[in-house]
Amino acid sequence: MKIATLRIPVDRVSNTGTPDGQLVVVSDDLTGIEGMAAQSLQEWLDKGFGNVTRNHSLSFPDSGVHSPLPRAYQFLDGSAYVNHVELVRQARGAQMPDSFWHDPLMYQGGSDSFLAPTDDIVGDPDWGIDFEGEIAVITGFVPMGASREQAAEAIRFVMLCNDVSLRNLIPGELAKGFGFVQSKPACSFSPVAVTPDALPGWDGAKLHGVLRIDLNGEPFGRVDAGTDMTFDFPTLIAHAARTRNLAPGTIVGSGTVSNKLDGGPGKPVAQGGAGYACIAEQRMIETILTGAPTTPFLRPGDHVKIWMEDDNGASIFGAISQTVRHIKDKT
Amino acid sequence: MKIATLRIPVDRVSNTGTPDGQLVVVSDDLTGIEGMAAQSLQEWLDKGFGNVTRNHSLSFPDSGVHSPLPRAYQFLDGSAYVNHVELVRQARGAQMPDSFWHDPLMYQGGSDSFLAPTDDIVGDPDWGIDFEGEIAVITGFVPMGASREQAAEAIRFVMLCNDVSLRNLIPGELAKGFGFVQSKPACSFSPVAVTPDALPGWDGAKLHGVLRIDLNGEPFGRVDAGTDMTFDFPTLIAHAARTRNLAPGTIVGSGTVSNKLDGGPGKPVAQGGAGYACIAEQRMIETILTGAPTTPFLRPGDHVKIWMEDDNGASIFGAISQTVRHIKDKT
Repeated sequence: MKIATLRIPVDRVSNTGTPDGQLVVVSDDLTGIEGMAAQSLQEWLDKGFGNVTRNHSLSFPDSGVHSPLPRAYQFLDGSAYVNHVELVRQARGAQMPDSFWHDPLMYQGGSDSFLAPTDDIVGDPDWGIDFEGEIAVITGFVPMGASREQAAEAIRFVMLCNDVSLRNLIPGELAKGFGFVQSKPACSFSPVAVTPDALPGWDGAKLHGVLRIDLNGEPFGRVDAGTDMTFDFPTLIAHAARTRNLAPGTIVGSGTVSNKLDGGPGKPVAQGGAGYACIAEQRMIETILTGAPTTPFLRPGDHVKIWMEDDNGASIFGAISQTVRHIKDKT
Repeated sequence: MKIATLRIPVDRVSNTGTPDGQLVVVSDDLTGIEGMAAQSLQEWLDKGFGNVTRNHSLSFPDSGVHSPLPRAYQFLDGSAYVNHVELVRQARGAQMPDSFWHDPLMYQGGSDSFLAPTDDIVGDPDWGIDFEGEIAVITGFVPMGASREQAAEAIRFVMLCNDVSLRNLIPGELAKGFGFVQSKPACSFSPVAVTPDALPGWDGAKLHGVLRIDLNGEPFGRVDAGTDMTFDFPTLIAHAARTRNLAPGTIVGSGTVSNKLDGGPGKPVAQGGAGYACIAEQRMIETILTGAPTTPFLRPGDHVKIWMEDDNGASIFGAISQTVRHIKDKT
C-alpha cells in the first residue's frame, strides 16, 4: 500500500485544520487517491488500522502534499553508509576508528515540524546549506532490547528523506560532543510512503535501487541504496532500542547514501560515476583529489530533486523537490 | 493554572485509550481535580485552549498520572548550569573551553514515550544508571531566528524533569560526536505543569527555588534552580530556534541543576552543603577531593524523589518518585 498526507493548514480563528493533515491511500502509479483514512498516520500507527473510505477517484496532487508524518515523536538518523563517514575523515586527514564499522553512528534529529516535500529550504547561505539523500523507515512499537528480527518486523513504511544539513555549523557542534541541533534543521520526506510488501527492491532490511538526485536540473547522484550499506535498517533500529522502547511512528534514517567505486572514492555522474547524495561528499572527493573543494554549497534559488524509479521508470515515492530561499526573503 | 495528564492506557482490542491521556486542571494545592479538558495538552498547544468542564471534584490521584506531555514532538535539553560541565571536565583533568560560558550545550533528547513520574526506571546497572534533576518548560510556536523576548513569550508551562542518564555509555557516545542516543533513555516529568503566571519563584526567565532530591529517603540535593544558571530559558529557546521553527509542545530542559559553594565545588547535604542533582556530580567531587568516586550509581531497588516546595512547604509540581528495576526483572 502507498499512503500520503494532504495538508490541512491549522486556522486558529475558525478552529479548523490539523498539523497532522489528511491521510490518503494513493494508487500504485501515484496518479490517483484511492481512499481517505478516518485518522492520521500517527493514529493509525498508535491504534491499528481504522476505516478507509474507498472509491474516491481524486487525482493525486503535485503540491499540497505533506511529508507522510508531518511531525513525528522521534527521528533517529544513522550513518549506515560508512563510506561517507570514511571520506569525511579522509578529507580532513583523520583516521576513522575501526569501531565505526561495527558500532553505528546515530543522532536524534528534530522531528517536531518537518518540511513538506515541495517546501522551500529556508536559511542563510553562510550556514553552508546542503541536502542529504537518504532512505528512511517508519516503525511500529519496538521494545527495549529488541533483536534484529523484532526490529525488522516493526518496519511499517519506507520513504525517502532529504536531511537538510548546515555544513558550516557542524564542526562547532560536533566538537561540543552533544550532536546536531542548529546544524540539522527541519528535513523533508517523499510525498509517498510505501509498505514493505508493496515496495520493489525491498529485501526486508535494505532498499535496492538507484536514489536519483538532480541539482538544478542536472544529474548529481545516481547512487544505489542497496550497495555499501554497512548497517541495514533492522540493525539501526535494534541499536536505537538497546536502552529504551521506541514508540509507534519512530522514523529511522539511513544517513546519506554513498557508493564506493572500485573500493575507493566515487566519481561525478558527468564523469560516468554514480555521483553523490550530498554536496559535502563531492567537496570531499575534490579535496582528496585536488586539495580543495570547488563545488559550492546551496545558494538561494538552487533546486534539488530526490526520487527513485522502479524497473519501468515509474516514480515509486514521488519526488522531494525543493528550492533554497534566503532567510531574509519572504515567500 | 496547574495541569496534569491522567493515564488512559491504549487497548487495541476494545479500541479505547490514548497515549496522550486525559488532560485535567488541578487545584493549586494539588488535592483536587477542578476540570476535565476536551482535548489533550498537545491539542491545546496546537489549536489554543478549548473547553474545560468545571465543577468536577475528584481528588488528584497519587498514581495513574502521566508526565504532562506523555510524549512530545521535541525535547531539547541544555546544560545551563555550566558549573556542572566544568566539574565534569575537572574530574577528568580536562580544561573547559571558554566558549562554553557563552554558547550553550544542548542535545536533542528522546521524546517519543516519556516515563510517568512514578514509573520504574528500567535498565542494566552496568550501564551506570543516574538521575538528573532539572527544570523544563513547554513552549508554544517559536519562529526561526526568534529573539530572547519572543522566546520568553512562548513559554507556556514549567515543570520538573528527571533526565535519566546511563553514565557508563556516555563516554563512548560523546567520543563519536553525534550526541546521546543509547545513553539518554526515556526520562520523566513532574505530575503537574504550571503556567508561568501561577508559579511562585518564576521571574520570566528562571525558576527561583530549591529543587529537592532524596535518594532512598535521605536528602541528596537541595539545589537552588535560580542560582548559577548561566543560560536562562529564553536564551536556551532562542539557541534552539536559531536555524529552525520550534513547534508547539517543544520541551526545553535546563540540564542538571548545579550550585557552586563559595565559587568552588559544593558539599553533600549531610555536610551542610546544597548537595547535588545527580550522582555523577557527587562522584566528580569525590574524584576531585580524593582521587576516586565512592558513591555508586543506582542499583535495582534504589528510589529517587524529586520535588519543589513553595514558601509554605507545599509541593508545587507534585513529586517525581521512581524506583530502579533491573531490565531482567518483570514488574
